[in-house]
Amino acid sequence: MLSMTDSIQEIIAKIRAFRDEREWMQFHDPKSMAASVVIEAGELLEHFQWKNKEEAKEYVKSHKNEIAEEMADVAAYLFEMSDNLGIDLLDAIHKKIEKNAAKYPVEKAKGVHTKYDQL
Amino acid sequence: MLSMTDSIQEIIAKIRAFRDEREWMQFHDPKSMAASVVIEAGELLEHFQWKNKEEAKEYVKSHKNEIAEEMADVAAYLFEMSDNLGIDLLDAIHKKIEKNAAKYPVEKAKGVHTKYDQL
Amino acid sequence: MLSMTDSIQEIIAKIRAFRDEREWMQFHDPKSMAASVVIEAGELLEHFQWKNKEEAKEYVKSHKNEIAEEMADVAAYLFEMSDNLGIDLLDAIHKKIEKNAAKYPVEKAKGVHTKYDQL
Amino acid sequence: MLSMTDSIQEIIAKIRAFRDEREWMQFHDPKSMAASVVIEAGELLEHFQWKNKEEAKEYVKSHKNEIAEEMADVAAYLFEMSDNLGIDLLDAIHKKIEKNAAKYPVEKAKGVHTKYDQL
Repeated sequence: MLSMTDSIQEIIAKIRAFRDEREWMQFHDPKSMAASVVIEAGELLEHFQWKNKEEAKEYVKSHKNEIAEEMADVAAYLFEMSDNLGIDLLDAIHKKIEKNAAKYPVEKAKGVHTKYDQL
Repeated sequence: MLSMTDSIQEIIAKIRAFRDEREWMQFHDPKSMAASVVIEAGELLEHFQWKNKEEAKEYVKSHKNEIAEEMADVAAYLFEMSDNLGIDLLDAIHKKIEKNAAKYPVEKAKGVHTKYDQL
Repeated sequence: MLSMTDSIQEIIAKIRAFRDEREWMQFHDPKSMAASVVIEAGELLEHFQWKNKEEAKEYVKSHKNEIAEEMADVAAYLFEMSDNLGIDLLDAIHKKIEKNAAKYPVEKAKGVHTKYDQL
Repeated sequence: MLSMTDSIQEIIAKIRAFRDEREWMQFHDPKSMAASVVIEAGELLEHFQWKNKEEAKEYVKSHKNEIAEEMADVAAYLFEMSDNLGIDLLDAIHKKIEKNAAKYPVEKAKGVHTKYDQL
């Protein structure tokens, strides 16, 4: 059983093996992979489609496995795509946080959800 | 500098700190987080909107940083959402691969992109 | 100036003319068109990303033009796609409403947002 | 049977009646409506997820009804949302085409899918 303390690389190796056993790399061009990420993200959002905040809060407690599965679908395509493109996803997040820290200085952004160009 | 060999937990801790410094947790209910994942996934897809396979292949070489940034946005929301919901994302992927292995047996799925219910 | 009482066919003719003057039909295969619909839909959703119900209600009053523009983008791709595929979109909606009326009988569906397979 | 020559207003009246009989307006805030548009758009894109251009071309011939149904779902939410917000969708498309004509002058945009800020 893998856990969050395991490396993301191990799971990418599993995804790669799953795909290559089925000879699916031929279908996994970047456009189709990006489309797959958005399709699965839509399925994740569908769980919350008509729910208000209170309903959503209750729902995530009683449907954790179903939500985890949709999130896994998004993540698996995203991880594979990063692997296909030679992108270090964790490093990219690290850099994006630094960039966002400049765009959203704490003193201006605290407690508001205003977009950076309106701050 | 983080790399793919670092734990996903380290990056989640960074995301959490970034959010909490800005007191943004109040906006990060599950529906808004899922909406954010799909919004960013749409921006990732936009890079490939009108491109054919050959153009996409060239584009990913010359625009690696831009694509990495969009993927980082999707991943950051997904990672934070998993953290908020107490979902072990890597474990969820691990389980989903096992489930998909049953739905897509190698001998039937090899070399075709048919959906499991049509295999 | 067109208004809602004009036929959808007139606007499709305009969209078609705009596209053909620019020789863009070569890029408008069904996959790219469907991708474009979802990309623009994501931009529409972005307007509401972090807003609660009250904020969204105020926002739609003060940002009607911006929202109308995003909705126009989704609709224009959808209309053109229906034209390209020889699909009568209004007839398709008419049929879908009949289908949904059977899936969501008034006596069961009234006042609840339960999905039909859970009703 | 409605056809493309009917007014979009007739179909919006039907959508409104369907919704109100079920007392669903309470769930149809703008954020949930925009989420619904993107969710259904994702389902439309799913039909083309792994297909290349030739496969997509064949598929639209043999699965016209299925695709029409997904497009109807996107359109129905979009039409209802425009009605809820008092937005004249056809007029909005008309204005957007004029705006795009300025952003994509024929002599520059002809035969290329370059984004306007790169033209």
